[in-house]
Amino acid sequence: MSSDEEMVVTPWKVSGKIDYEKLIRQFGTQPLTKEILEKLKKHAGSLHYLIRRGFFFCHRDFDLILNLYEQGKKFVLYTGRGPSGPVHLGHLLPWIFTKYLQDAFDVKLYFQMTDDEKFLLHHDFTVERSVGYTYDNALDVIAIGFEKEKTRIISDIKNIRALYNIAVKVAKHVNFSVVRAVFGFEESTNIGLIFFPAIQAAPCFLESVLTGENVPALIPAAIDQDPYWRVTRDVAPKLGFYKPAQIHSKFLAGLGKGGKMSASQPETCIFTTDSLEAAEKKVFNAFTGGQPTAQEQRRFGGNPEVCTVYQYMLYLFEEDDGKVRELWENCRSGRIICGECKSILAERVKKFLLEHQKRREKAKDVVEEYFLKD
Amino acid sequence: MSSDEEMVVTPWKVSGKIDYEKLIRQFGTQPLTKEILEKLKKHAGSLHYLIRRGFFFCHRDFDLILNLYEQGKKFVLYTGRGPSGPVHLGHLLPWIFTKYLQDAFDVKLYFQMTDDEKFLLHHDFTVERSVGYTYDNALDVIAIGFEKEKTRIISDIKNIRALYNIAVKVAKHVNFSVVRAVFGFEESTNIGLIFFPAIQAAPCFLESVLTGENVPALIPAAIDQDPYWRVTRDVAPKLGFYKPAQIHSKFLAGLGKGGKMSASQPETCIFTTDSLEAAEKKVFNAFTGGQPTAQEQRRFGGNPEVCTVYQYMLYLFEEDDGKVRELWENCRSGRIICGECKSILAERVKKFLLEHQKRREKAKDVVEEYFLKD
Repeated sequence: MSSDEEMVVTPWKVSGKIDYEKLIRQFGTQPLTKEILEKLKKHAGSLHYLIRRGFFFCHRDFDLILNLYEQGKKFVLYTGRGPSGPVHLGHLLPWIFTKYLQDAFDVKLYFQMTDDEKFLLHHDFTVERSVGYTYDNALDVIAIGFEKEKTRIISDIKNIRALYNIAVKVAKHVNFSVVRAVFGFEESTNIGLIFFPAIQAAPCFLESVLTGENVPALIPAAIDQDPYWRVTRDVAPKLGFYKPAQIHSKFLAGLGKGGKMSASQPETCIFTTDSLEAAEKKVFNAFTGGQPTAQEQRRFGGNPEVCTVYQYMLYLFEEDDGKVRELWENCRSGRIICGECKSILAERVKKFLLEHQKRREKAKDVVEEYFLKD
Repeated sequence: MSSDEEMVVTPWKVSGKIDYEKLIRQFGTQPLTKEILEKLKKHAGSLHYLIRRGFFFCHRDFDLILNLYEQGKKFVLYTGRGPSGPVHLGHLLPWIFTKYLQDAFDVKLYFQMTDDEKFLLHHDFTVERSVGYTYDNALDVIAIGFEKEKTRIISDIKNIRALYNIAVKVAKHVNFSVVRAVFGFEESTNIGLIFFPAIQAAPCFLESVLTGENVPALIPAAIDQDPYWRVTRDVAPKLGFYKPAQIHSKFLAGLGKGGKMSASQPETCIFTTDSLEAAEKKVFNAFTGGQPTAQEQRRFGGNPEVCTVYQYMLYLFEEDDGKVRELWENCRSGRIICGECKSILAERVKKFLLEHQKRREKAKDVVEEYFLKD
C-alpha cells in the first residue's frame, strides 16, 4: 500500500494517506478551538498530551458538554472496541485519553465490546470466539486503570438485554436507505450488520434510560467511528435525548513502511501480550525516517515526520513536550541516529509492557465486576 | 372489502377470499395425508376436531417429526403471538391445537411474544405498550391450560438475551435481498424490522442451544407466518440444526360481512375480555348465511358455508361431529333459522368466556412463572 493511495476512512477500513483537515470538512466535525481547550484545562487541571499534540483533533458538541458541566450537569463517557483479536498499542490511545477524562470530570464510563458485530462481519468467527476476545480485551481496558465503581464494560452479546430495548427505539427511526448511504450497505449485507448501527447507538442513551434522567454522553474515539454517531445524532432528539457528543482522535501509525499497521501482519503492531523480546524485535525492525547509512544520517539528518519510532515516542512514550521537541531536533540535525532512537523506544516499550502485563494479569480477578449487570 | 378481492396472505395482512389449495401450491407446503393423520391418531389417541375439520390443513416435515418421535426423538413445540392488542377468539384456535399436541406427545412448548416487532411496526406503539400486551396476552395463553412445567413464554424484549446469540447466527446467513424478496421489505423499512426475521427464527433452535442436543421444533401456526419458516429452514442446516417443521392452520373468519375480522372494528371479533353482554350483542349482529326473512329461510334454507355463526360452531363451540353435521343440514333445509342459531352460539360463547375469564384471572398469580428464565 502506498501512502499516496486514496484516503479511505470507514468503520471497517482506514487506508491511504490520511488528510485530517479534509476529514473535518468531509465529516462535518468542528476543530478544537483555543476556547474549548482552555475550558478543558480549567476543569482537568492540565491538558493531556494527546490533546496538546493534536492526536485528538476535532469534535462535535464537546463545547456543549463542557458548558452543561459548568452548569452542574454531568455527562457520561462512552467508548468501545471491536473485539476481533488481541489489543495493540494503537488501541490504547483513546482509552488512555478516556481515563484522563474520567479522572478529570469524575464521570461514569460505558465501554462497549461489539462482539456481535465482529461475529457478523468475519466469516470465520464463532460467537464464542467473539465473546472470548471481549473478555480478553477487557483485561487491557481494566489495565488502563479505569475506576471500577465508575466503569461498566458491555458485551453486546452478554448484555444485550440492557441494549435491545434502546436499540429497537433507535432502529424504528433508521431505514435501509439511511444505512446504505452512511455505511455503504448493499443487497448482500447480512441483516445482523444492517441492524447493528442501532446496537452501537444504544449505549449513548443507556445512562438516561437507567437513571430516568436525560444524561448527555461524550464519546472519545477514533474518527472512523463517526458514521455511527451521525446516524445516532439524527435520532436522539426524536427519542427525547441529548445528541451524543464526540471528541475524535487520529489513528496511530503502525510500524510498517508508510505507517502501515495491520493485524494480519503482526510485525507492524505491538500487541499488549507480546513478549518483551518480540516487542523489542518489532521496534528494531520498524520503518523510520532515517538515511540509508549512519554517515548520511549524521550529515543530512532524518525525517521524524514519516518515522514510526518518532510517532510512538510522540503519542505513547514521552509525556514531556520539551523532550519530544529535543528528539525532533536531534533527528533533523543528525545528532541522533535510528539505532539509538530505537533503543530508547525499545526500553520504554518493554517497561510499559512489563507493567501493563502485570496489571492485565491482576485484572483477571476483577474482570467480571467491570461488566454491566442487568 | 369484498371477498372477491385478490387474496393477500402475508405476516402483516390477510385479505380477500382465501384459496387454501392455492396457498399450498404458492407456499410449497404439503397437504396432510391420511397416513400422517393415522400416525398422529395413533400417538394422540384421537384426532383433534381442528384437524378432522381441516382447520389445520397442511404442513412441512410433520411426517419427519412423527417419524423421529417414533424413533424415540422428542421434539419441542413453538408458536407465538404478536402482542398488538387484546386476544380474540380467532387467536385461540392454534393455541388450543398446540395444547392438544403438548398433551398428546408430552413435549415442551416455547411461546414467543413478538413485542419488539409490534413496537417496530406500529407508529404509535411504545416499547412499554408492546410489553404490556405481552403480559396481558400471556394470561390468555395460560388460560388455555398449558402445563407450567413444560411451557416457556418468551418476551422478545425481556428475554432477548436467550434469543440474540441465536438470532445473530441466523442473521449472518440472511441478507437484504432475501428479506426483500420474502417479506417485501423496502428501502424505507426500518432496520429493526429488517433484522426481526432472525429474532422470530431464534426459538426454533432455542431448545437445541439450551440442551446442547439437536432437538427438532414443530410449529403449529396460521399459514401467514410461513415466510419466516421458509427463511429459517434455509439457514437451519448451515447451523447444524433440524429444519423447523410446521403444521399450518387456516384463519378463523370474523363476524363481519364476508367473514371480515379486524381489530380496528371491534364488533367483528369477540375478545376474550369482552363482557358477556357485549359478546352476546356481537353474536346477534353477526353476518350469517340466512335469508332476508324467517319465512324465506324456512322455505329456501340458509347457506352455512358463508355463515360466520356456523364457522364459530364448527371451529370453536361444537366438538361433536354429528351435531355439526346436523346443524349444517338443519340450516340448509330451513329447519333452523338464524335467530335460533345465534342464541345457541351466544350461550356457548358466554359459557366459554365466563370460564376463560376465570382461568385468565387465576393466571395473574402464576404469569411470571411461565416466562423464560435466562
